[in-house]
Amino acid sequence: MSDREVLDDISHRRYNPLRGSWILVSPHRTKRPWQGQKETPSKTSLPVFDSSCYLCPGNLRAVGDTNPAYPETFVFVNDYSAVKEDQQDYVQPESGDKSSLLLQAAGVRGKCYVICFSPSHNLTLADIPTEMIVPIIKTWTALYASHLPKSSPYYQVPAAELGITVPGDQYTYMQIFENKGAAMGCSNPHPHGQVWTTTGIPEEPSLEIQNMKEYKRKHGAGLLKDYVDLEITKEKRIVALNDHFAALCPWWAIWPFETMIICRREVHSLPELTEEEQIGLAKVISIVTKKYDNLFETNFPYSMGIHQAPLDGDPEDRKACHLHLHFVPPLLRSATVRKFLVGYELMAEPQRDITPEQAAERLRNLSGDEVYRGNLVCCPEA
Amino acid sequence: MSDREVLDDISHRRYNPLRGSWILVSPHRTKRPWQGQKETPSKTSLPVFDSSCYLCPGNLRAVGDTNPAYPETFVFVNDYSAVKEDQQDYVQPESGDKSSLLLQAAGVRGKCYVICFSPSHNLTLADIPTEMIVPIIKTWTALYASHLPKSSPYYQVPAAELGITVPGDQYTYMQIFENKGAAMGCSNPHPHGQVWTTTGIPEEPSLEIQNMKEYKRKHGAGLLKDYVDLEITKEKRIVALNDHFAALCPWWAIWPFETMIICRREVHSLPELTEEEQIGLAKVISIVTKKYDNLFETNFPYSMGIHQAPLDGDPEDRKACHLHLHFVPPLLRSATVRKFLVGYELMAEPQRDITPEQAAERLRNLSGDEVYRGNLVCCPEA
Ligand SMILES: [Zn+2]
Ligand SMILES: [Zn+2]
Repeated sequence: MSDREVLDDISHRRYNPLRGSWILVSPHRTKRPWQGQKETPSKTSLPVFDSSCYLCPGNLRAVGDTNPAYPETFVFVNDYSAVKEDQQDYVQPESGDKSSLLLQAAGVRGKCYVICFSPSHNLTLADIPTEMIVPIIKTWTALYASHLPKSSPYYQVPAAELGITVPGDQYTYMQIFENKGAAMGCSNPHPHGQVWTTTGIPEEPSLEIQNMKEYKRKHGAGLLKDYVDLEITKEKRIVALNDHFAALCPWWAIWPFETMIICRREVHSLPELTEEEQIGLAKVISIVTKKYDNLFETNFPYSMGIHQAPLDGDPEDRKACHLHLHFVPPLLRSATVRKFLVGYELMAEPQRDITPEQAAERLRNLSGDEVYRGNLVCCPEA
Repeated sequence: MSDREVLDDISHRRYNPLRGSWILVSPHRTKRPWQGQKETPSKTSLPVFDSSCYLCPGNLRAVGDTNPAYPETFVFVNDYSAVKEDQQDYVQPESGDKSSLLLQAAGVRGKCYVICFSPSHNLTLADIPTEMIVPIIKTWTALYASHLPKSSPYYQVPAAELGITVPGDQYTYMQIFENKGAAMGCSNPHPHGQVWTTTGIPEEPSLEIQNMKEYKRKHGAGLLKDYVDLEITKEKRIVALNDHFAALCPWWAIWPFETMIICRREVHSLPELTEEEQIGLAKVISIVTKKYDNLFETNFPYSMGIHQAPLDGDPEDRKACHLHLHFVPPLLRSATVRKFLVGYELMAEPQRDITPEQAAERLRNLSGDEVYRGNLVCCPEA
């Protein structure tokens, strides 16, 4: 039995060098019966325009403004931002006890944006043609570039029609992400993502940067550059590939159909992508989201996030970063059966049953050109 | 404005010294409207005995055995264990490429148990009288003690009626946990928990032990001993308290109503508890689970886990450990509205809206003596 086949059969841990953490894989366990909660598949038959949607062109938002008649993407400041530009400062109080050790806090300022991906209420990234995904990538890029320090070679004044109001302060990190589907707590099917930019680097990117920095110091090469090259030669975990980007189920994936999209060139942030690479990224996003929908023939829920260099701070941090996207989908074995991260996984260690190689094989064999969505709840009254 | 009040108003990060990680708190954001998915509240009107339940006394389980007519608790080996006692060994293959660096794996062996908390199908920890929670604590203790190395002063042969078959191998860590409710992926309402014991220390306890060990080296005292003492003087985050245990919303809580139960004495593992301390723990578990049910007048879902010393390994690890329980409940603002850990939280940093102090105040003010469950779906045909 080859080593690959041994890992198809035995319980084992896999190491995630990007986080410096382990996950438990139990491949023999996939035969377990399912008796738990079921998800409601997402509704279909959405209109192109919904007069009650706060993201559709021309509609009034809850707090204030009216959306313009935007033709491609549209950016606005989140009406319910998790971080704010102006707030009182916080200074940890002096204390005679151990509060300064055990009750530490630090103020966080920042700005939150919403990006509409398309004026059409009823499209998802899987439906939007590749040439209309490029403007979304260009909007992400413009947002990032306009928040860089003015001294950066990649700094750019955003085009007026984007409606981006650049903050007066220099923030440190920009997290671009998308929540799709009710299973991911997303309240509106209108295709959109979010961008939160903050003082300080958040926990996850901070952990990844630390590990990428140490890898570079030790091995003189980029962790994700080495990794994407290795996976392309191994083939087993590749989901989609073109000259510029690879989509794969990472060796250390936690979620059943988790994928990463990694730039094949060692690029630190979005503004460094060439026009051709932007198209390459749009193509891979289109293929991955179509494959996801086809997997269970449903409108596939996920959280997606882009990791790239911090806006500001240590230049060694920036150089250690390698542009990549994470897709984290909750579904496990059908449009209605999800994986739960509970119990052992919360208290001890993340755990998965099917191996990343099995997941990659299933995704690889699905169409990335067309979308099939049989398992939708048809809901004409919605 | 005092510092405490500042943190009620501004976005800030709080440090978790137990994990060495940060979380984002956005207290101003609690006014956000909710349009997302709703949970189905759990069903009521369960029978005391369900002939189709594989955990009820006298019933046949899917794979093989018949449950005995147990009077208190009952332990059996999980029919669908995530780890097994016997499996092929795995040796990382030699390779000329970077596989040994980027595709690391290690075999994991172990044993998984299920513990029925009560013969009654329709009770939860909130319903079980305190004096019947004590036998559950004694069963957890017996399981742990019987898996210690025979040289340990706390080693115990398990009582025959528990039905515990001790593995031939010495495992390193034992994770005791409970998943309660469909929202936590739990398929069976019969009150029960699980125990997974493995070679190697899993990710979460390993991280905590590392931080507790470093704290002890630096400050000459136990991290959780210092923390529980400090919280008792601060009062604000305490939910329930007796001479032996404190229940509190930790300073660094991620989930809206997350709590920890911490032993007030620096005890490393369950077998070190005195009879009186066992009763103290049973009382606090009873109060916390009753308060949880009363919060939204529902059968409150959660994951619970016990962290204590490893079974085997470095004695300094054992000495750094301090017995505690984590309760992680998903509900946010009613029996049907849950918190999702998605988007920014998966990609960047966990985030919460209501502060741990606000959560503790709400839990403190609820009854811990009686249970009210108005918001149940009455489901006579179930
Ligand atoms: Zn990343
Ligand atoms: Zn813990």
